[in-house]
Amino acid sequence: MTPELISLDHGSGGKIAHRLTAELLLPLFDNPILSDLHDGAVLTLNGNTRVAFSTDTFTVTPLFFPGGDIGELAVNGTVNDVAMCGATPLFISLALIIEEGFPMAELTRILESINRAANAAGVTVVTGDTKVVPKGAADGLFINTSGIGLIPEDVRIGSTGAQPGDKIILSGTMADHGMTIMTQREGLTFDSAIESDSAPLNHMVAKILAASSNVHVLRDPTRGGVGTTLNEIAESSQAGIVLQESWLPMHDAVAGVCELLGFDPLYVANEGKLLAFVAAEDAEAVLAAIRSDTYGREACIIGEVTAEHPNQVVLETRIGGRRIVDMLTGEQLPRIC
Amino acid sequence: MTPELISLDHGSGGKIAHRLTAELLLPLFDNPILSDLHDGAVLTLNGNTRVAFSTDTFTVTPLFFPGGDIGELAVNGTVNDVAMCGATPLFISLALIIEEGFPMAELTRILESINRAANAAGVTVVTGDTKVVPKGAADGLFINTSGIGLIPEDVRIGSTGAQPGDKIILSGTMADHGMTIMTQREGLTFDSAIESDSAPLNHMVAKILAASSNVHVLRDPTRGGVGTTLNEIAESSQAGIVLQESWLPMHDAVAGVCELLGFDPLYVANEGKLLAFVAAEDAEAVLAAIRSDTYGREACIIGEVTAEHPNQVVLETRIGGRRIVDMLTGEQLPRIC
Repeated sequence: MTPELISLDHGSGGKIAHRLTAELLLPLFDNPILSDLHDGAVLTLNGNTRVAFSTDTFTVTPLFFPGGDIGELAVNGTVNDVAMCGATPLFISLALIIEEGFPMAELTRILESINRAANAAGVTVVTGDTKVVPKGAADGLFINTSGIGLIPEDVRIGSTGAQPGDKIILSGTMADHGMTIMTQREGLTFDSAIESDSAPLNHMVAKILAASSNVHVLRDPTRGGVGTTLNEIAESSQAGIVLQESWLPMHDAVAGVCELLGFDPLYVANEGKLLAFVAAEDAEAVLAAIRSDTYGREACIIGEVTAEHPNQVVLETRIGGRRIVDMLTGEQLPRIC
Repeated sequence: MTPELISLDHGSGGKIAHRLTAELLLPLFDNPILSDLHDGAVLTLNGNTRVAFSTDTFTVTPLFFPGGDIGELAVNGTVNDVAMCGATPLFISLALIIEEGFPMAELTRILESINRAANAAGVTVVTGDTKVVPKGAADGLFINTSGIGLIPEDVRIGSTGAQPGDKIILSGTMADHGMTIMTQREGLTFDSAIESDSAPLNHMVAKILAASSNVHVLRDPTRGGVGTTLNEIAESSQAGIVLQESWLPMHDAVAGVCELLGFDPLYVANEGKLLAFVAAEDAEAVLAAIRSDTYGREACIIGEVTAEHPNQVVLETRIGGRRIVDMLTGEQLPRIC
């Protein structure tokens, strides 16, 4: 049954958000590019120019947090979505919705952060839009970025390409971004600092593609976390996935906060991590390529693709049990990105 | 002096918004594509593929109004910005910010309207994003669309190309959209219906470009109206502009409401009109091409470009006087689009 009102769950990146997309948006805008449900759309222009195109809106609160701010996040988020298509991100748009009365000093600080992030990723802000709404009609600042990247001729990366035997690499620790926002919002402080992992991943993707031509899937596990993203890939590829719990990388402090607050790190957002599905014979080479990148030093193989239990993600626990990892149900944390 | 807080004026499309762009955004993101300040960015990909890229956010209230709704507006707005670069719009993104508790039935109605508008314009929705924010953090629904179009090889349209002698064509009546929103919001009713002019202009642009290779500038006068847009063109092209007041097309009912409420129609937003700057010898052919389009039947020549008074727009009034038409100062009407 379709609910009558939009709830926070519809924006969670989890199961209910997925249903909104599958039941309302896809049938309406019926076309194969959108149905691909990848991080970005892959377009062919002028016969042979393949372009990745992606959009993302950022409503994170607070606007500034350890390890980043909404500006940096807005650049990296779209850069990464474009990069996950195997593209070289080149151009981004910047659209601001600002609440009347927002401090000019904060806006300036955020725009400077956007500029730094764009420079770091090597993308140019080429077009924009500014809307100001009356006090109370928005909460501070929302940012939309859209991005365009060029896909090299020989690169074919999609959501549907996972194959039995593929190794699954996670480029670093889980849950850093989500738990940072959570602790900030709750006013919690800990002895060991927790920081957002917000980072551009396009340079890492270039290294991955240089290391192997057998990369089948690239995705960044943002909203909904590693657990939800792996479920989407399992579904798109009609493949089964087995994860080893003991292989999942996490910072101790983040693991501690997750336990304390009752969050499953598999469902907590990351903003500077990717999942790569790679043919087994190239897995070590790709792992080495990822680890050679500034943002991939803690990369690990976390599992593999199996012909068994298609569409399902199964976790082999530390104590030898097996449990199904479903998509995120409900919203753990609104306004995480 | 830079104000310390963002005001509604910063989003008006007028003088203060212009200053925010010129003094903060352009110096920071310093690059020639952005500095062009056209409705969209013109990008070259893969050596010879020229692409127009544009973004626009819609915060209009009310969401439904005579002649359209926020969904149709969001598609047409971006389609038109891409078309004003001389491009054929092909693909759009759709990013939603929805307030928790928003009625699913209204969302569905708006998405259906988006789909109809996309079909009418011949563009495909290829990628999207949905964010839901808690009750009170946004007012109902905001929509961002970004668009990509392909520019034919021989087409060169910019903001800087206005030349002395060019005729200026306006594709139809002024101020319909802005005054429709205004009367809706104020709860005013009139005997004669006023309707938004929201419309896709890409098919009209194709007819214009087929009729002449001497089209120098295309722009759609949305926020800030015809007056502000002409000032922007005068500045970018370092040209003078002379308008004939008696040639400016308006519906009687709209003119009446403007007078009643004290609005200058030159500064009121249009959402389905364009301004074309065309070499004099081709002006009649282009006018005929525009009039052959569904949305251009009331097109008129409204003035011309002069070598005198560069950067200035001068109106020759009905009674034979002359007055300077400056950019919009202050915000006439927030959340108009």
